[in-house]
Amino acid sequence: MSPRTIFYVSDGTGITAETFGNSILAQFPGPFRHVRRPFIDSEDKAWQVVREVNECAQREGVAPVVFLTLVNDAVRDILTDGQNGPAAHGRAKVMDMFRSFVEPLEEEFGIKSNHRIGRFSDAAKSQEYHDRIEAINFSLAHDDGQSARNLEQADVILVGVSRSGKTPTSLYLAMQHGVKAANYPLIPEDFERGHLPTSLMPHKRKCFGLTIDPERLSQIRNERRPGSRYAALDNCRAEVAAAEQMMRRSGIEWLSSTHKSIEEIATTILRDIRPDRLSY
Amino acid sequence: MSPRTIFYVSDGTGITAETFGNSILAQFPGPFRHVRRPFIDSEDKAWQVVREVNECAQREGVAPVVFLTLVNDAVRDILTDGQNGPAAHGRAKVMDMFRSFVEPLEEEFGIKSNHRIGRFSDAAKSQEYHDRIEAINFSLAHDDGQSARNLEQADVILVGVSRSGKTPTSLYLAMQHGVKAANYPLIPEDFERGHLPTSLMPHKRKCFGLTIDPERLSQIRNERRPGSRYAALDNCRAEVAAAEQMMRRSGIEWLSSTHKSIEEIATTILRDIRPDRLSY
Repeated sequence: MSPRTIFYVSDGTGITAETFGNSILAQFPGPFRHVRRPFIDSEDKAWQVVREVNECAQREGVAPVVFLTLVNDAVRDILTDGQNGPAAHGRAKVMDMFRSFVEPLEEEFGIKSNHRIGRFSDAAKSQEYHDRIEAINFSLAHDDGQSARNLEQADVILVGVSRSGKTPTSLYLAMQHGVKAANYPLIPEDFERGHLPTSLMPHKRKCFGLTIDPERLSQIRNERRPGSRYAALDNCRAEVAAAEQMMRRSGIEWLSSTHKSIEEIATTILRDIRPDRLSY
Repeated sequence: MSPRTIFYVSDGTGITAETFGNSILAQFPGPFRHVRRPFIDSEDKAWQVVREVNECAQREGVAPVVFLTLVNDAVRDILTDGQNGPAAHGRAKVMDMFRSFVEPLEEEFGIKSNHRIGRFSDAAKSQEYHDRIEAINFSLAHDDGQSARNLEQADVILVGVSRSGKTPTSLYLAMQHGVKAANYPLIPEDFERGHLPTSLMPHKRKCFGLTIDPERLSQIRNERRPGSRYAALDNCRAEVAAAEQMMRRSGIEWLSSTHKSIEEIATTILRDIRPDRLSY
């Protein structure tokens, strides 16, 4: 089956169109070919996309799907051709995301929308953006237990054995949510001492644990250091058991990263540390 | 004006609902209070959210807005109460994102959707997810010119003066798009030698430059090292001028990060290095 072409057309980055479009498309088997057209902020650029969509439809013999997030009415009208799609000839299936939702909200709020392009526009000036960048810097400086300085500033400290998913989760929390996430490995020396690393002691209530199936851990470690003691299944089993015991004894909540994406892990942690607050 | 409450309700992480909801809400002045309810995957949990939404409506005297991404019909029906909102009493404004778009696509594709929950579900098993994690590891290992090893594996190498935005952009490219993005600082020693760092020479066509207004750069550097020579405006001016000259001479494309978010920078770079390919 030849892939259906999907266009993401936006006057901003198109990230919203893509995120949303992919969620919807995940409900279908595919295959899909993705074409991104960001920063379509003039009528000229809009006409260029219309031509491209129509050529694609003609070449492939099926209608491309076009996800739109456009706030400029003139640009949007070109791509939606009034009601009939960019396709004066009905050649594309247009999903106009803003029209479907902005209008009901205008009615509900009793005001007109401001037609602001892109939620990231001029983000560079906002406090919230500044906080996100600071959080990224913090998480990088506190990756893998590199530094115990300023741990009191951390929103959360991830703990777990090496390669349990702490680093990508910390960076994701910082980047997407402005959360200052440090991470600290639990290593064999900690297990011998039988307690958490001393520098974490005063911050126990901010700690959140990640664990992982020993089989999966061994597989991941073998990709990095094939055949090593570090990657051996029995060693992974022992480390994971010791880490779980330590977290249990210290009263640290944890979850298993084995079948979870960093998005799912982060969402669970956020629910814990910030039940009602989001950051963008 | 007291904030309007916005609920994001999903049977997955809710990331799609939030991204989309925030894009739509950016068209309105607010203020908004955000409440996230992820992993709503049973009828019991759905009823709990309905109660919460209704209590909120009663307490605040205005209708909360509820963004839904639910694929389970039974759960969705509870929250949408057929057509009338989670509010048997019409107390909430429900934005049912899937119903609006999945149905037209079922018609277009001529098949029923598979009702798969969340695009990140069991992501941990997919090749694409594996590649994203690999890209994060690569970008971390190649942050700030730390290593010139395996640079041939990089999809892109960001260059620019210290604090021009290379690190967060590299991590964003890796995390969101599975792009292996290295980054390399251009430092005074490079300017004295008058050419790109030697290790970058063989990879010039993969380099992409970031520049920044000297005033803004000085401000950012002063936050980190107040009053230093490093942060002084005249020094920032000289470094930026030398870096731009070097990029121009080397034929490296660049953009200014001054008024751009990492999302906007990344989108521009992707257009360059991957015009027609996305990764999720």
